[in-house]
Amino acid sequence: MEAARKQIALLGSTGSIGKQALEVIQAHPDRFEVYALTANNQVDVLIDQARRTLPDAVVIANETHYLRLKDALSDLPIKVYAGADAIADIVTAEPIDMVLTAMVGYAGLRPTISAIKAGKPIALANKETMVVAGEIINRLAHENRVPIIPVDSEHSAIFQCLEYHNPIEKIILTASGGPFRTWSTDQLVQATRAQALKHPNWDMGAKITVDSASMMNKGFEVIEAKWLFYLQPNQIEVLVHPQSIIHSMVQFEDGSIKAQMGLPDMKLPILYAFSYPERLQTQFPRLDFSEFATLTFEKPDFDRFRNLQLAYHAMNTGGNMPCILNAANEIAVEAFLQDKISFLGMSDLIEKTLRAVSFLPTPDYEDYVRTDAEARLFAKSIVH
Amino acid sequence: MEAARKQIALLGSTGSIGKQALEVIQAHPDRFEVYALTANNQVDVLIDQARRTLPDAVVIANETHYLRLKDALSDLPIKVYAGADAIADIVTAEPIDMVLTAMVGYAGLRPTISAIKAGKPIALANKETMVVAGEIINRLAHENRVPIIPVDSEHSAIFQCLEYHNPIEKIILTASGGPFRTWSTDQLVQATRAQALKHPNWDMGAKITVDSASMMNKGFEVIEAKWLFYLQPNQIEVLVHPQSIIHSMVQFEDGSIKAQMGLPDMKLPILYAFSYPERLQTQFPRLDFSEFATLTFEKPDFDRFRNLQLAYHAMNTGGNMPCILNAANEIAVEAFLQDKISFLGMSDLIEKTLRAVSFLPTPDYEDYVRTDAEARLFAKSIVH
Repeated sequence: MEAARKQIALLGSTGSIGKQALEVIQAHPDRFEVYALTANNQVDVLIDQARRTLPDAVVIANETHYLRLKDALSDLPIKVYAGADAIADIVTAEPIDMVLTAMVGYAGLRPTISAIKAGKPIALANKETMVVAGEIINRLAHENRVPIIPVDSEHSAIFQCLEYHNPIEKIILTASGGPFRTWSTDQLVQATRAQALKHPNWDMGAKITVDSASMMNKGFEVIEAKWLFYLQPNQIEVLVHPQSIIHSMVQFEDGSIKAQMGLPDMKLPILYAFSYPERLQTQFPRLDFSEFATLTFEKPDFDRFRNLQLAYHAMNTGGNMPCILNAANEIAVEAFLQDKISFLGMSDLIEKTLRAVSFLPTPDYEDYVRTDAEARLFAKSIVH
Repeated sequence: MEAARKQIALLGSTGSIGKQALEVIQAHPDRFEVYALTANNQVDVLIDQARRTLPDAVVIANETHYLRLKDALSDLPIKVYAGADAIADIVTAEPIDMVLTAMVGYAGLRPTISAIKAGKPIALANKETMVVAGEIINRLAHENRVPIIPVDSEHSAIFQCLEYHNPIEKIILTASGGPFRTWSTDQLVQATRAQALKHPNWDMGAKITVDSASMMNKGFEVIEAKWLFYLQPNQIEVLVHPQSIIHSMVQFEDGSIKAQMGLPDMKLPILYAFSYPERLQTQFPRLDFSEFATLTFEKPDFDRFRNLQLAYHAMNTGGNMPCILNAANEIAVEAFLQDKISFLGMSDLIEKTLRAVSFLPTPDYEDYVRTDAEARLFAKSIVH
């Protein structure tokens, strides 16, 4: 008898992670099958993906694309939906075995909660979900006995190094340092959009690439790690490692450190999240130490990369502070990509928003929704 | 109710590993207790250790020291024995929960077999046992359901990185390269005993320090790994890593690499073997990446370090070849330490012995004993 194939819902299938997840699924057709694809705006890519993979359902978040999508797939037995409600709905479909959350930003929160409530294991590629509402996510996951398997390469590395019995002493999140690692503050003042979008090691979407350049991405990862691995803030260290070969490390209470390493390729952590606890054979290129004969490490510079400071501050303060951080950052990155504010202006905008929005020590879901809206409104008001 | 303390027999307690094992046991008096101590020749150290730790029994291999040992401990309720038979005997004592095999060389084989037959879990610090007779050891361990937990830092690293379900694609054994890593063959011709005994990273006994300088130690580790982890020769790679921070790595079939890292300190793998699968809290100094900001890697040079070539050859040939390799190497190191042969002369001696002694494809225990004797005799005959 053939083992049942894992039915996977890909949220954000037209983004960088979504596309790579499709490659992974198609490389292992005996193990995985696409149940649903969802996208925000890129309807043509979604149509193409749907025609190639024949999922049960597709959803486009932006409802203005609904008819175009419906028409383009009318000859196929694929259900077509539109809107954020439909995304939160589709993830609860009975046949789904796993939900990959690979949409960008705050938009990941609602469907992730919906999937957890429906008991669906999560492959988490939307770190903002944990940044904004990690406490709620953890509680729901616990109540519904739902595993949350990280897809971020750093968190996947840590997840791969964990030991069932043995507590973590600390984790070391590695950071490439991004394209501006060696830039002085004077140079950072001048940093352009094009420069920020050139990441040295990873090929990713625009939002996360800017977040990497500003190190807000690492700040988010710190907060994400706190919730994923039930850590105290002082158990989380950031270490700059420009070659991105060591993806992160765990130090145990005996002092032993375990690291997960490899070429920078998101397909590996995606596959691992899908196949866990098994590993599947792959043809991915293997790491060759003659090409990476030197690995280096530096302390992160919290002065030049103020976002990292702000993220630690938000984590230490807790409550709705990380939610404000995330909302302000989404507005800041958008404004930077539209040339409305400078690279360093992003940190100013975020800091002002953190100070302005009302702090709530123990927010519930509705509080997060309100905080997010309030923070965005405030941040936008000072951009213009 | 207090958990019973693990009763440990330390074979080779007066050597470098044995001494560190005693420190580990004394740092965790609620978890471990010394049941027996054995030594080869260093009777005064053994007396001191016995008076401090009050084991049930002590054994001195060299019987000429028996009376001195007996007298020195006559006021204490410690049983005193002498001779190789007594060592093979004491490890079978009912209360023993684990046997650390930390004696030097071929002498480890017999008591290890005896302990396995008595069902005692082994903390294996005597790699020669696996080099000489890995097939027999594995069969006996399997028959007696005895776990063999490696203490060598490299094999402990691999053991720490293993995953229950997931096969190994390959392992990468790291090697410091020893004191002669950068020496040319012309320089190696002149290498002295004092130079060979200065290891850059590890403080060890004389035999293993010379083996490290000649890279025979790494060759032995390759063979040891083959048996410990059930690998094919082509799954074992050696990578020179002069800083000795990454202790070794495992590559899985998805391409992911896991590494175990830390400061070079044998107490950690010793403790891990004692506490496995748990890790215990320690006060060992932690690795600080600002002190090790650069980690480097090089391919090993099989031409300058011919022992590594000979070890791979012995492993690939199989049968009693690794046993001949080990015996010849013990004679070679002894002769080198007595200034009877040169540093490179060791490889010549070993190679000649490998050619001279009769090859047996499927030796049994008695064959190994005969092979060892024959190889030593031949090797000695060409030293003089």
